[in-house]
Amino acid sequence: MNGLDSVIRDAGAAAYAAYGSSADANVRYLTRFRTTDPVIYVAKPGERGMIVVPQMEHERAVRESIAAVATRADAGYLEYIKAGESRWRATAHVIADLAGGPVLVPATFPLALARELETFHPVVLDGAGSVEGMRAVKTPEEIERIRSVQRAAEAAIDRGITLIRSSAPRAGVLCRDGAPLTSEAVRTAMHTVLLAHGCRGVDTIVSCGPETALPHNTGSGPLLENEPIVIDIFPRDELSGYYADMTRTVVKGEPSPEIREMYDAVRDAKTLAAAEVRAGVAGADLYNAVVEFFRDRGYESDARGFIHSLGHGVGLEVHEEPSLGPRGGALAVGNVVTIEPGLYYPGIGGVRLEDMGAVTETDFDRFTQYEEELTL
Amino acid sequence: MNGLDSVIRDAGAAAYAAYGSSADANVRYLTRFRTTDPVIYVAKPGERGMIVVPQMEHERAVRESIAAVATRADAGYLEYIKAGESRWRATAHVIADLAGGPVLVPATFPLALARELETFHPVVLDGAGSVEGMRAVKTPEEIERIRSVQRAAEAAIDRGITLIRSSAPRAGVLCRDGAPLTSEAVRTAMHTVLLAHGCRGVDTIVSCGPETALPHNTGSGPLLENEPIVIDIFPRDELSGYYADMTRTVVKGEPSPEIREMYDAVRDAKTLAAAEVRAGVAGADLYNAVVEFFRDRGYESDARGFIHSLGHGVGLEVHEEPSLGPRGGALAVGNVVTIEPGLYYPGIGGVRLEDMGAVTETDFDRFTQYEEELTL
Repeated sequence: MNGLDSVIRDAGAAAYAAYGSSADANVRYLTRFRTTDPVIYVAKPGERGMIVVPQMEHERAVRESIAAVATRADAGYLEYIKAGESRWRATAHVIADLAGGPVLVPATFPLALARELETFHPVVLDGAGSVEGMRAVKTPEEIERIRSVQRAAEAAIDRGITLIRSSAPRAGVLCRDGAPLTSEAVRTAMHTVLLAHGCRGVDTIVSCGPETALPHNTGSGPLLENEPIVIDIFPRDELSGYYADMTRTVVKGEPSPEIREMYDAVRDAKTLAAAEVRAGVAGADLYNAVVEFFRDRGYESDARGFIHSLGHGVGLEVHEEPSLGPRGGALAVGNVVTIEPGLYYPGIGGVRLEDMGAVTETDFDRFTQYEEELTL
Repeated sequence: MNGLDSVIRDAGAAAYAAYGSSADANVRYLTRFRTTDPVIYVAKPGERGMIVVPQMEHERAVRESIAAVATRADAGYLEYIKAGESRWRATAHVIADLAGGPVLVPATFPLALARELETFHPVVLDGAGSVEGMRAVKTPEEIERIRSVQRAAEAAIDRGITLIRSSAPRAGVLCRDGAPLTSEAVRTAMHTVLLAHGCRGVDTIVSCGPETALPHNTGSGPLLENEPIVIDIFPRDELSGYYADMTRTVVKGEPSPEIREMYDAVRDAKTLAAAEVRAGVAGADLYNAVVEFFRDRGYESDARGFIHSLGHGVGLEVHEEPSLGPRGGALAVGNVVTIEPGLYYPGIGGVRLEDMGAVTETDFDRFTQYEEELTL
């Protein structure tokens, strides 16, 4: 963890400390330990980081974590608790003992823990988000993991699109086996495919018609003929914790002329942005290029039209650094990002297309291989 | 939200503020808004709490959240960002504007945000965990939601146990259709049942043989004849966010005499503890009664034997208040808790049984109805 060592030294700190379950992506990244309950993490320059876990997690942590492992008893936590200290006080006490000097902590460090820790040593805030920055640059191994999750995403979306393709409209409602095909049924079918790939899907979007004008509406009820259906799926690999993220928009039947034009504009915007991706290019410049492109085609980027950013990093969080939004900085080799232009008009509907890939010195190594076709 | 009002007033604060995505159970509880990206929440006594969300989430938030909704633009956030403030500074600025005085915050409030907020108003730490305390006492509606998730858990575990029951041992390995039945296959089959109930399972434990001596080993590979198989499933309802939690231990074939004795002791400990549950009883007393019971049967409660607590609250987190551990306080009407004694001996294996139910004035309203039988 040499990257963290220099951050600790530059901050004039003796150690870096974090506290959380593996729901905290920084904790998961630094420990590679899956846990529902929070653990203490302390890293000192030149040493392997250490986690402090309950006795019952000790053997599993030794097997699974890349960090050194101590039990709460080893680390003195249980004695501090027995002496009457609160949980936060005892946790801070353990961190202070392990750090032995000023402690660098992430922006999201719990305030209650910081206030106790400050009574032992200075607490220095890592304002630059160093661990988030480290996470944003993927190793080749991480890139392969994310690529494999993308394969699961494509298998799942293919199942969903196949269901829609093979449906038969009845009075404007898509039906299969005589019953309406619903957003929920398509979502469940896709999630079942993800399970078979060792992945899980949560809040997968299968929205239709008016729902599509809200980019994060998950969708519900029967799917409709001649209306845009937005499918946005972001599976997570159960074991590694890495995400993928992709979106396709389809119509069973005949889209309105407005939707067809929006689709062409979104597809061309994605192509345009992907062609510009390489190390050193600013996410903000890519975003602004798409805003300008949409403007030329007659679309706004305000309360309607293109109302979100162009993309985001993907890793142990589905949204992480770097940003391809109005304030996005320079891309670096090893970033894994989405490119996902979209257009949203109440009364007409929404269209979004999203690919994901890695930033290289020279281009965008696109992971997404799934076809794009509006009409099924 | 009258409970929060009195907490704010008692703390001498003008408002309560939280910051997080719906992965933060307090934020989810207070807002009932599902979001991957963090939102600002501010509540003032006598007023409806408010969330501040990005423009693209505005309409969905108005529909889904129980809080009042403002966009970042409405709340001044975008102007502060345009004026050059950092993300944390601008967020603190918005909270300060909405609060108009001292701000009460949860223990897990991000340190970076607290340091910025302190430049506007005093930041008072809610050391008592008031929102966690409110969450621990479920309304009748919450109890019904959790009960329905428990039904999904039982349907899923029944599928898993049916697979094991209908397997045929070959040279000590459980087989189906001529191939080994694995932990992974049983887990996937159970998760598929959960999907059909609108729930998801994560890290479900299907451990076998030596693996069972580690309570949180998720298990992998072929399941074995004559060995304990621990199935611990804690599904979450996708829409409501509520969990259930249950565990059964089974053996296909003939368990060792040690496992059989451990099973009897664990089952009797669960019965003993369940009979004592009612409002006013301390979680620690229940835990200690089980430690004593196990001691009488010749089992330790230290580095081996009964190595975890007796139970925990279940709600928007799978582990929440109250605790049925060594420091557990008095139970209250409306608590939903697990009772899950277990015994773990390296070289022999592990046994755990877990039921869940609600605390009433007079007893334990057990949700878990699924049968207990060691041998299949």
